[in-house]
Amino acid sequence: VMKLRILWPGKTKNKELRRLQEFYLERIQELAPCELIETREARGIEEKFEERIKEVEAKGLEKHFKDDYIICLFDEGKEMSSLDFARFLEKLLLTSQRPITFVIGGFLGLKDRILKSADTVLSLSKMTFSHELCRVILLEQIYRSLAHIRGKQYPK
Amino acid sequence: VMKLRILWPGKTKNKELRRLQEFYLERIQELAPCELIETREARGIEEKFEERIKEVEAKGLEKHFKDDYIICLFDEGKEMSSLDFARFLEKLLLTSQRPITFVIGGFLGLKDRILKSADTVLSLSKMTFSHELCRVILLEQIYRSLAHIRGKQYPK
Repeated sequence: VMKLRILWPGKTKNKELRRLQEFYLERIQELAPCELIETREARGIEEKFEERIKEVEAKGLEKHFKDDYIICLFDEGKEMSSLDFARFLEKLLLTSQRPITFVIGGFLGLKDRILKSADTVLSLSKMTFSHELCRVILLEQIYRSLAHIRGKQYPK
Repeated sequence: VMKLRILWPGKTKNKELRRLQEFYLERIQELAPCELIETREARGIEEKFEERIKEVEAKGLEKHFKDDYIICLFDEGKEMSSLDFARFLEKLLLTSQRPITFVIGGFLGLKDRILKSADTVLSLSKMTFSHELCRVILLEQIYRSLAHIRGKQYPK
Protein backbone atom coordinates (compact mmCIF):
# COMPACT_ATOMS: atom_id res chain seq x y z
CA VAL A 1 0.00 0.00 0.00
CA MET A 2 1.27 3.44 -0.91
CA LYS A 3 2.20 5.64 1.97
CA LEU A 4 0.25 8.71 2.95
CA ARG A 5 1.94 11.69 4.53
CA ILE A 6 0.41 14.79 6.06
CA LEU A 7 2.40 17.96 6.64
CA TRP A 8 1.52 21.21 8.39
CA PRO A 9 3.52 23.82 10.32
CA GLY A 10 3.43 23.62 14.11
CA LYS A 11 1.65 21.47 16.63
CA THR A 12 -2.11 21.78 17.00
CA LYS A 13 -2.62 24.03 20.03
CA ASN A 14 -6.32 23.59 20.71
CA LYS A 15 -6.58 20.63 23.09
CA GLU A 16 -9.89 19.29 21.77
CA LEU A 17 -8.83 19.56 18.13
CA ARG A 18 -5.54 17.86 19.04
CA ARG A 19 -7.44 14.92 20.58
CA LEU A 20 -9.71 14.64 17.55
CA GLN A 21 -6.64 14.75 15.32
CA GLU A 22 -5.06 11.87 17.25
CA PHE A 23 -8.33 9.94 17.15
CA TYR A 24 -8.66 10.15 13.35
CA LEU A 25 -4.94 9.58 12.74
CA GLU A 26 -5.06 6.31 14.68
CA ARG A 27 -8.14 5.19 12.71
CA ILE A 28 -6.39 6.06 9.43
CA GLN A 29 -3.28 4.14 10.48
CA GLU A 30 -5.40 1.03 11.00
CA LEU A 31 -6.28 1.23 7.30
CA ALA A 32 -3.11 2.56 5.64
CA PRO A 33 0.45 3.58 6.52
CA CYS A 34 0.19 7.28 7.32
CA GLU A 35 2.73 9.68 8.77
CA LEU A 36 1.91 13.11 10.22
CA ILE A 37 4.78 15.61 10.34
CA GLU A 38 4.28 18.89 12.18
CA THR A 39 6.94 21.03 10.50
CA ARG A 40 8.71 24.21 11.62
CA GLU A 41 6.36 27.00 12.64
CA ALA A 42 7.32 30.67 12.27
CA ARG A 43 7.68 32.20 15.71
CA GLY A 44 8.48 35.69 16.97
CA ILE A 45 7.69 37.39 13.66
CA GLU A 46 5.04 40.13 13.79
CA GLU A 47 1.88 39.19 11.94
CA LYS A 48 2.20 42.16 9.57
CA PHE A 49 5.24 40.45 8.01
CA GLU A 50 2.95 37.94 6.41
CA GLU A 51 5.24 36.90 3.56
CA ARG A 52 8.16 36.34 5.93
CA ILE A 53 6.05 34.06 8.08
CA LYS A 54 4.84 32.15 5.03
CA GLU A 55 8.43 31.88 3.74
CA VAL A 56 9.76 30.39 6.99
CA GLU A 57 6.92 27.87 7.01
CA ALA A 58 7.28 27.11 3.30
CA LYS A 59 10.96 26.20 3.84
CA GLY A 60 10.00 23.98 6.76
CA LEU A 61 7.47 22.16 4.57
CA GLU A 62 9.77 21.90 1.53
CA LYS A 63 12.43 20.14 3.61
CA HIS A 64 10.05 17.19 3.74
CA PHE A 65 9.07 17.23 0.06
CA LYS A 66 10.56 14.33 -1.82
CA ASP A 67 9.22 13.02 -5.06
CA ASP A 68 5.74 13.00 -3.56
CA TYR A 69 2.38 13.55 -5.17
CA ILE A 70 1.54 16.81 -3.38
CA ILE A 71 -2.04 17.75 -2.49
CA CYS A 72 -2.30 21.26 -1.03
CA LEU A 73 -5.39 22.48 0.78
CA PHE A 74 -6.65 25.90 -0.22
CA ASP A 75 -10.14 27.51 -0.06
CA GLU A 76 -10.05 28.33 -3.74
CA GLY A 77 -8.88 24.89 -4.83
CA LYS A 78 -10.94 22.16 -6.44
CA GLU A 79 -13.97 21.02 -4.47
CA MET A 80 -14.99 17.37 -4.44
CA SER A 81 -17.84 15.48 -2.85
CA SER A 82 -16.73 12.88 -0.28
CA LEU A 83 -17.39 10.16 -2.86
CA ASP A 84 -15.34 11.97 -5.53
CA PHE A 85 -12.56 12.43 -3.00
CA ALA A 86 -12.63 8.71 -2.13
CA ARG A 87 -12.44 7.81 -5.85
CA PHE A 88 -9.61 10.30 -6.41
CA LEU A 89 -7.66 8.88 -3.46
CA GLU A 90 -8.33 5.28 -4.46
CA LYS A 91 -7.06 5.91 -7.99
CA LEU A 92 -3.92 7.59 -6.65
CA LEU A 93 -3.28 4.75 -4.19
CA LEU A 94 -3.59 2.23 -7.02
CA THR A 95 -1.61 4.04 -9.69
CA SER A 96 0.82 6.51 -8.11
CA GLN A 97 4.42 5.41 -7.81
CA ARG A 98 5.01 8.27 -5.41
CA PRO A 99 3.98 8.74 -1.78
CA ILE A 100 0.90 10.93 -1.44
CA THR A 101 1.41 14.01 0.71
CA PHE A 102 -1.30 16.36 1.96
CA VAL A 103 -0.16 19.87 2.94
CA ILE A 104 -2.11 22.38 5.06
CA GLY A 105 -0.79 25.89 5.66
CA GLY A 106 -0.46 27.69 8.99
CA PHE A 107 -2.82 30.45 10.17
CA LEU A 108 -1.78 32.70 7.26
CA GLY A 109 -2.01 29.96 4.66
CA LEU A 110 0.53 28.61 2.18
CA LYS A 111 3.17 30.48 0.21
CA ASP A 112 2.21 30.89 -3.46
CA ARG A 113 5.06 28.76 -4.78
CA ILE A 114 3.93 25.82 -2.65
CA LEU A 115 0.44 26.10 -4.13
CA LYS A 116 1.84 26.45 -7.65
CA SER A 117 4.04 23.38 -7.34
CA ALA A 118 1.20 21.18 -6.04
CA ASP A 119 -0.07 18.27 -8.12
CA THR A 120 -3.60 18.96 -6.86
CA VAL A 121 -5.04 21.92 -4.97
CA LEU A 122 -8.01 20.72 -2.96
CA SER A 123 -10.68 22.81 -1.23
CA LEU A 124 -12.62 21.44 1.72
CA SER A 125 -15.20 24.19 1.36
CA LYS A 126 -15.85 27.60 -0.13
CA MET A 127 -15.88 28.75 3.48
CA THR A 128 -12.70 29.54 5.38
CA PHE A 129 -12.24 27.40 8.45
CA SER A 130 -9.57 27.97 11.11
CA HIS A 131 -6.41 26.14 10.07
CA GLU A 132 -6.56 23.83 13.09
CA LEU A 133 -10.17 22.89 12.33
CA CYS A 134 -9.10 22.16 8.72
CA ARG A 135 -6.65 19.59 10.04
CA VAL A 136 -9.40 17.63 11.75
CA ILE A 137 -11.76 17.94 8.78
CA LEU A 138 -9.06 16.65 6.41
CA LEU A 139 -8.22 13.70 8.68
CA GLU A 140 -11.91 12.82 8.98
CA GLN A 141 -12.28 12.87 5.18
CA ILE A 142 -9.17 10.72 4.65
CA TYR A 143 -10.48 8.25 7.23
CA ARG A 144 -13.93 8.27 5.64
CA SER A 145 -12.40 7.68 2.19
CA LEU A 146 -10.16 4.83 3.29
CA ALA A 147 -13.06 3.19 5.11
CA HIS A 148 -15.10 3.49 1.92
CA ILE A 149 -12.25 2.09 -0.21
CA ARG A 150 -11.75 -0.82 2.20
CA GLY A 151 -15.49 -1.49 2.09
CA LYS A 152 -16.03 -0.77 5.74
CA GLN A 153 -19.17 0.92 6.81
CA TYR A 154 -18.40 4.41 7.94
CA PRO A 155 -19.41 4.83 11.58
CA LYS A 156 -22.03 7.57 11.80
CA VAL B 1 -30.63 42.54 18.00
CA MET B 2 -32.54 39.73 16.35
CA LYS B 3 -32.30 36.41 18.10
CA LEU B 4 -30.45 33.45 16.65
CA ARG B 5 -31.59 29.92 17.36
CA ILE B 6 -29.87 26.64 16.52
CA LEU B 7 -31.73 23.33 16.51
CA TRP B 8 -30.51 19.77 16.10
CA PRO B 9 -31.71 16.40 17.37
CA GLY B 10 -29.91 14.93 20.36
CA LYS B 11 -26.95 15.94 22.47
CA THR B 12 -23.50 15.92 20.93
CA LYS B 13 -21.93 12.65 22.11
CA ASN B 14 -18.30 13.15 21.19
CA LYS B 15 -16.68 14.79 24.20
CA GLU B 16 -14.19 16.93 22.29
CA LEU B 17 -16.79 18.15 19.80
CA ARG B 18 -19.11 18.93 22.69
CA ARG B 19 -16.43 21.08 24.35
CA LEU B 20 -15.73 22.91 21.06
CA GLN B 21 -19.47 23.44 20.64
CA GLU B 22 -19.69 25.01 24.11
CA PHE B 23 -16.62 27.13 23.41
CA TYR B 24 -18.05 28.62 20.20
CA LEU B 25 -21.56 29.00 21.61
CA GLU B 26 -20.22 31.09 24.50
CA ARG B 27 -18.25 33.28 22.06
CA ILE B 28 -21.38 33.73 19.91
CA GLN B 29 -23.46 34.66 22.95
CA GLU B 30 -20.99 37.45 23.75
CA LEU B 31 -21.89 38.97 20.36
CA ALA B 32 -25.60 38.16 19.92
CA PRO B 33 -28.49 36.49 21.73
CA CYS B 34 -28.30 32.85 20.65
CA GLU B 35 -30.16 29.80 21.90
CA LEU B 36 -29.16 26.21 21.19
CA ILE B 37 -31.92 23.60 21.47
CA GLU B 38 -31.02 19.92 21.30
CA THR B 39 -34.35 18.44 20.25
CA ARG B 40 -35.77 14.92 20.53
CA GLU B 41 -33.53 12.24 19.08
CA ALA B 42 -34.95 9.01 17.63
CA ARG B 43 -33.90 6.09 19.82
CA GLY B 44 -34.42 2.36 19.67
CA ILE B 45 -35.39 2.34 15.99
CA GLU B 46 -33.29 0.11 13.71
CA GLU B 47 -31.20 2.08 11.25
CA LYS B 48 -32.88 0.42 8.28
CA PHE B 49 -36.07 2.29 9.15
CA GLU B 50 -34.48 5.50 7.93
CA GLU B 51 -37.69 7.39 7.20
CA ARG B 52 -39.16 6.56 10.60
CA ILE B 53 -36.08 7.91 12.32
CA LYS B 54 -36.17 11.06 10.22
CA GLU B 55 -39.90 11.47 10.94
CA VAL B 56 -39.45 11.27 14.72
CA GLU B 57 -36.65 13.81 14.56
CA ALA B 58 -38.55 16.06 12.13
CA LYS B 59 -41.47 16.24 14.58
CA GLY B 60 -39.06 17.08 17.41
CA LEU B 61 -37.61 19.93 15.36
CA GLU B 62 -40.97 21.22 14.11
CA LYS B 63 -42.22 21.64 17.70
CA HIS B 64 -39.73 24.47 17.99
CA PHE B 65 -40.51 26.13 14.66
CA LYS B 66 -42.37 29.36 15.10
CA ASP B 67 -42.48 32.08 12.53
CA ASP B 68 -38.69 31.84 12.16
CA TYR B 69 -36.51 32.39 9.14
CA ILE B 70 -35.31 28.79 8.78
CA ILE B 71 -31.83 27.95 7.46
CA CYS B 72 -31.34 24.20 6.98
CA LEU B 73 -27.92 22.65 6.48
CA PHE B 74 -27.62 20.17 3.65
CA ASP B 75 -24.63 19.03 1.52
CA GLU B 76 -26.45 19.88 -1.67
CA GLY B 77 -27.60 23.30 -0.53
CA LYS B 78 -26.19 26.67 -1.52
CA GLU B 79 -22.51 27.15 -0.84
CA MET B 80 -21.19 30.51 0.31
CA SER B 81 -17.74 31.84 1.10
CA SER B 82 -17.28 32.94 4.73
CA LEU B 83 -17.56 36.56 3.58
CA ASP B 84 -20.76 35.87 1.62
CA PHE B 85 -22.16 34.07 4.66
CA ALA B 86 -21.30 37.03 6.91
CA ARG B 87 -23.04 39.42 4.48
CA PHE B 88 -26.06 37.14 4.24
CA LEU B 89 -26.33 36.91 8.03
CA GLU B 90 -25.77 40.65 8.49
CA LYS B 91 -28.55 41.47 6.03
CA LEU B 92 -30.92 39.05 7.77
CA LEU B 93 -30.08 40.46 11.20
CA LEU B 94 -30.80 43.97 9.93
CA THR B 95 -33.95 43.28 7.95
CA SER B 96 -35.66 40.14 9.20
CA GLN B 97 -38.61 40.63 11.51
CA ARG B 98 -38.39 36.95 12.42
CA PRO B 99 -35.89 35.08 14.61
CA ILE B 100 -33.24 33.29 12.55
CA THR B 101 -33.07 29.55 13.13
CA PHE B 102 -30.37 27.18 11.88
CA VAL B 103 -31.32 23.51 11.65
CA ILE B 104 -28.91 20.55 11.35
CA GLY B 105 -30.19 17.00 10.89
CA GLY B 106 -29.20 13.93 12.86
CA PHE B 107 -26.87 11.19 11.55
CA LEU B 108 -29.34 10.34 8.76
CA GLY B 109 -30.01 13.94 7.82
CA LEU B 110 -33.22 15.94 7.58
CA LYS B 111 -36.65 14.83 6.41
CA ASP B 112 -37.50 16.16 2.94
CA ARG B 113 -40.39 18.32 4.11
CA ILE B 114 -38.10 20.15 6.54
CA LEU B 115 -35.70 20.91 3.69
CA LYS B 116 -38.55 21.98 1.41
CA SER B 117 -40.03 24.35 3.96
CA ALA B 118 -36.69 26.06 4.66
CA ASP B 119 -36.18 29.70 3.70
CA THR B 120 -32.56 28.92 2.82
CA VAL B 121 -30.75 25.60 2.38
CA LEU B 122 -27.08 26.14 3.14
CA SER B 123 -24.18 23.80 2.40
CA LEU B 124 -20.97 23.97 4.44
CA SER B 125 -19.14 21.94 1.81
CA LYS B 126 -19.60 19.61 -1.13
CA MET B 127 -18.09 17.02 1.20
CA THR B 128 -20.15 15.14 3.76
CA PHE B 129 -18.95 15.68 7.30
CA SER B 130 -20.18 13.74 10.32
CA HIS B 131 -23.26 15.49 11.72
CA GLU B 132 -21.52 16.26 15.01
CA LEU B 133 -18.56 17.82 13.20
CA CYS B 134 -21.04 19.92 11.16
CA ARG B 135 -22.35 21.38 14.41
CA VAL B 136 -18.92 22.69 15.38
CA ILE B 137 -18.20 23.96 11.85
CA LEU B 138 -21.51 25.86 11.76
CA LEU B 139 -20.92 27.42 15.18
CA GLU B 140 -17.42 28.47 14.16
CA GLN B 141 -18.79 30.11 11.00
CA ILE B 142 -21.55 31.93 12.90
CA TYR B 143 -18.97 33.17 15.40
CA ARG B 144 -16.62 34.22 12.60
CA SER B 145 -19.45 36.07 10.84
CA LEU B 146 -20.65 37.92 13.93
CA ALA B 147 -17.07 38.90 14.77
CA HIS B 148 -16.72 40.23 11.23
CA ILE B 149 -20.06 42.09 11.43
CA ARG B 150 -19.11 43.60 14.80
CA GLY B 151 -15.76 44.66 13.34
CA LYS B 152 -13.73 42.48 15.66
CA GLN B 153 -10.62 40.88 14.39
CA TYR B 154 -11.18 37.18 14.10
CA PRO B 155 -8.70 35.33 16.33
CA LYS B 156 -6.59 33.07 14.15
